[in-house]
Amino acid sequence: MSIKLDALAIRYHAGQLQILDQQLLPLETVWLSCHSIDDMCMMIKDLKVRGAPLIGIAAVLALMQFVEQGAQINDLIPAMEKLVATRPTAINLKNYMLDVAQELNGNPKNVLITGQRLFLEDVRLCDEMAQFGAQLLPTEATVMTYCNTGGLATAGLGTALGVIKQGFKQGKIKHVFVNETRPLLQGGRLTAWELNEARIPYTLICDNMAATVMGHQKIDAILVGADRIARNGDVANKIGTYSLAVLAKHHQIPFYVVAPYTTLCARTATGKEIEIELRDENEVRGALGRLYWTPEKAPTFNPSFDVTPHQLITGYILDKGVFKADSLHETMVAA
Amino acid sequence: MSIKLDALAIRYHAGQLQILDQQLLPLETVWLSCHSIDDMCMMIKDLKVRGAPLIGIAAVLALMQFVEQGAQINDLIPAMEKLVATRPTAINLKNYMLDVAQELNGNPKNVLITGQRLFLEDVRLCDEMAQFGAQLLPTEATVMTYCNTGGLATAGLGTALGVIKQGFKQGKIKHVFVNETRPLLQGGRLTAWELNEARIPYTLICDNMAATVMGHQKIDAILVGADRIARNGDVANKIGTYSLAVLAKHHQIPFYVVAPYTTLCARTATGKEIEIELRDENEVRGALGRLYWTPEKAPTFNPSFDVTPHQLITGYILDKGVFKADSLHETMVAA
Repeated sequence: MSIKLDALAIRYHAGQLQILDQQLLPLETVWLSCHSIDDMCMMIKDLKVRGAPLIGIAAVLALMQFVEQGAQINDLIPAMEKLVATRPTAINLKNYMLDVAQELNGNPKNVLITGQRLFLEDVRLCDEMAQFGAQLLPTEATVMTYCNTGGLATAGLGTALGVIKQGFKQGKIKHVFVNETRPLLQGGRLTAWELNEARIPYTLICDNMAATVMGHQKIDAILVGADRIARNGDVANKIGTYSLAVLAKHHQIPFYVVAPYTTLCARTATGKEIEIELRDENEVRGALGRLYWTPEKAPTFNPSFDVTPHQLITGYILDKGVFKADSLHETMVAA
Repeated sequence: MSIKLDALAIRYHAGQLQILDQQLLPLETVWLSCHSIDDMCMMIKDLKVRGAPLIGIAAVLALMQFVEQGAQINDLIPAMEKLVATRPTAINLKNYMLDVAQELNGNPKNVLITGQRLFLEDVRLCDEMAQFGAQLLPTEATVMTYCNTGGLATAGLGTALGVIKQGFKQGKIKHVFVNETRPLLQGGRLTAWELNEARIPYTLICDNMAATVMGHQKIDAILVGADRIARNGDVANKIGTYSLAVLAKHHQIPFYVVAPYTTLCARTATGKEIEIELRDENEVRGALGRLYWTPEKAPTFNPSFDVTPHQLITGYILDKGVFKADSLHETMVAA
């Protein structure tokens, strides 16, 4: 059996695993080879691979590689624990590891079966979200998005950006406003790059310009992804999402969270229980590790995520359809 | 007569005019010599000198230099028109030029008298705002500020940052949250530098983190400056101010605008009449002209300012006291 799985930013060919370095995009297109669980842990921590669904998929592929290298059943649990420990907030990683563990049945080769299923499922879930989301869009829609939630963040079309791409294909998207998403600039680097490649008309703004755009342009919807959705509908997502949600409410703009069921966490009752990862202060002191502009050792606060309370969320575009916060638990029990 | 005027970022010594390059701070401390009106116009356009009050003062000092170089009365009006045309939104520049013109009385030397008065007055206005503002602060206050409104933005202590410095001196300020203020990072570079020099405890955040800080910390007040205050109290200020004001309202945090009477504009009825300067797209594509991260020629929107409606403003800390929007016109008529 020779397994071949390809996504925009990850590829697995017969035990060879490579990821597209998302810290360098779009300035440089560099594929990095992953040779071990430790390699992958480092790549996830350094955000060379990122996006809640893709982190989960990348961890699964690293486990598959480990098995193809001859890992035994006793090697797999510590490997999964290492992978889960890399980033605490996004839940897809943990959910995928649970799936792999549950389907092991004492045979390491089962990782290869589960892994392929999860990869292909992630692609399918993206298509399903994109269909449900695109139906929701009015014609000639101008939308706003945040961070990167596209082909670089999933094995498929994307979550929020997948909806936008599908909407564009159906002729419903006129324009996209993209927030740059400090400090790591996933909007300015990655979403701008994906929209540019897809020839979808967009305008890049700094995060502090979103309010003035909402006040002066007719924004039909704001679409964001998620790193974890709690049972009550509270959403952990990239820092700045909460700000956008408050601004959307003030301007009466529908605010949608787009995520596959693998981002839901029935074990998390509310957003208050979600651990928020704090990252290196240097990220705020400059950009991309290449330029710094603050006084040396300027004290900073650098939460990677924030929590948007469910009251600010108009709807959840999931792979099973569009939900309100109070009906989310139904789909969670099903999942 | 040998005139000597010194501020943190500008100095005038007997016709020699120098400005501290605020595009390079705090990475480099470079004083630039200004030899002509054209030099100063370029320095203002390039934001090497910035801050609504300081731009006005810098233009006045350039006129003084021009007079000391032998400029005649017929040279002065075109020079003032050139200076006023550099940046359309901040009103102090225009107000100062009107003052100079009104006091000319056919004698170019009068520029030297008016100029010195305006410089010294700017210092005094800062002190007065600082006193009124500090009175308003509770003890152990944690405040948030935006952009740079300190000694680098005025001839004196500053506007919003002047209040914070005075409050700290009085033992009332415990902590300051500073928004970095994309795209030109006046918060991350200049305010962080001033607070660092003054040894005032602060935390620097990206602009998209303000909401989460408001939600999790007890913020006693948000203090910002202004580039123009219209008759009804609408305020043009650095892009992102409007966003902060909406977030402050949602979190029920008092939102104060700090400005001298020279920032008021009775000729501007409401914020709708204020021309908003659009700046170079490259500013959004990267940072400080030193690093770019977007796809080449990524389309951007780069308004330098936004307008905060008076309904979102708790109070105006002016040199004459603290006002509400509905009583602002009184102080304007007096001005």
